[in-house]
Amino acid sequence: MDKIRRELLTKMAGAAAMLPLVGAGSSAATTAAAAQEHSHEGVDMSIYKMGSEKIAMLMYDGMTALDLIGPQYLLGGMMGVQMYLVSKDGKPVTTDTGVGLVPNTSFDECPKDLDIFFVPGSAQGVLDTMEDEETIAFVKDRGERAKLITSVCTGSLILGRAGLLEGYKATSHWVSVDLLPLFGAIPVKERYVRDRNRITGGGVSAGLDFALSIIAELRGQPYAEAMQLLAEYDPQPPFNAGSPEKSPQNHVKVYRQMFKPFVEHVHKMVGKKQA
Amino acid sequence: MDKIRRELLTKMAGAAAMLPLVGAGSSAATTAAAAQEHSHEGVDMSIYKMGSEKIAMLMYDGMTALDLIGPQYLLGGMMGVQMYLVSKDGKPVTTDTGVGLVPNTSFDECPKDLDIFFVPGSAQGVLDTMEDEETIAFVKDRGERAKLITSVCTGSLILGRAGLLEGYKATSHWVSVDLLPLFGAIPVKERYVRDRNRITGGGVSAGLDFALSIIAELRGQPYAEAMQLLAEYDPQPPFNAGSPEKSPQNHVKVYRQMFKPFVEHVHKMVGKKQA
Repeated sequence: MDKIRRELLTKMAGAAAMLPLVGAGSSAATTAAAAQEHSHEGVDMSIYKMGSEKIAMLMYDGMTALDLIGPQYLLGGMMGVQMYLVSKDGKPVTTDTGVGLVPNTSFDECPKDLDIFFVPGSAQGVLDTMEDEETIAFVKDRGERAKLITSVCTGSLILGRAGLLEGYKATSHWVSVDLLPLFGAIPVKERYVRDRNRITGGGVSAGLDFALSIIAELRGQPYAEAMQLLAEYDPQPPFNAGSPEKSPQNHVKVYRQMFKPFVEHVHKMVGKKQA
Repeated sequence: MDKIRRELLTKMAGAAAMLPLVGAGSSAATTAAAAQEHSHEGVDMSIYKMGSEKIAMLMYDGMTALDLIGPQYLLGGMMGVQMYLVSKDGKPVTTDTGVGLVPNTSFDECPKDLDIFFVPGSAQGVLDTMEDEETIAFVKDRGERAKLITSVCTGSLILGRAGLLEGYKATSHWVSVDLLPLFGAIPVKERYVRDRNRITGGGVSAGLDFALSIIAELRGQPYAEAMQLLAEYDPQPPFNAGSPEKSPQNHVKVYRQMFKPFVEHVHKMVGKKQA
């Protein structure tokens, strides 16, 4: 995987790669030095804190691509970061909207000690993953060792299944947040929720807000603002239906029906485990 | 590619696949019939307009994954839609944040007459694509035939290079919107801009708002609201720095410097063409 990883590191942070001052892949020290050196060009680079965090993002068949790609864009923009996109065997995964994603490492080759371990959600893909012992063992191992244990959307159910949310406040997609107590977690209906070193995001697009809050913590607010500006994240949704409280109730009822088999499956799974 | 395409169609619209009423891959007619039939279950399914639009989304090396994955999630949730993810040779592409994306068709096999043709942006990847004659010829051909010609972020520069924006109002990422007149387009600084059958979105995350507006047009507002709710798109950015007007000006200046070589390259490219 070394070639692929090298390729990843040089391609990472596409925008940063264009910055004449700080090529992507340069060490944090070099980057910081370059930043200081160029502060006279009318901008203050010293406000952008440098680092070299190791981040691993789980990929599995049936996952929701957007759950991962949103945070990956923002977190990957942190200069010096080492981004591990990890599937079980290091091979591409399918997603629930049909686009395939290519990882850059496997469970075996993923570093053991991470700054951030991240799990995306989905519907059927989450159920399959929760019942896959090898993946759950991997999530438990890397999660327990990681400085920050994180998820977006129904990814929190996978964290829960791995025993990582017991006694922690957490959130999930609005259709699944009430399932969290099955795993000993305390459900909170917020955009993202932090309890000690667990940070869980709401459904799908919540990954953007979630990731900005993590960047602010790791690299300071100016860095998070800079990534928000690069992503032009100045949301102007044409409708106001993004939560079950704000949406027309017909849509809410449709999804409750649609996800009934999902909810029942999770209940049954947990019942089986306890039996 | 037939096997891959079939696989895509069955995996498409992950959420819809879970709906007991309407399995993904079922025809629009079946879906509509099923929806009517189940309207008695306490929800009105008839408000969700069905269809079978053909959408092609361009993939190229160096593209920004999030530019495409946001709209792909939302547009792909339209039941019955046919989603073609198209790279030159049908092989996976690299992206500027290091994640690889797997297409499901090639230029040769992509249908000629599309309802929507979509082009994502990036930085270096856009420059390379604008100078790739085969890709520009493909964009021009499918664009001219398509009912809606669309882009997100710097993807509008690729449309411009293919001659598709002459005399049209359009937008782009905020660092590149002022380049649009080089291609005869009239730059407009809005989240997304429609002029006749051209719809262009702003930078990266603007693809979410852009896609919701397209769904509303094709399938009606209720369908767009339902997709917004599924994506839990109730944005709550922790900072207010998503546009050059709102952001601290240091960030704006840094990006202007960072993208100076990009801007100069586009000017040079156009100059060469005219010479």
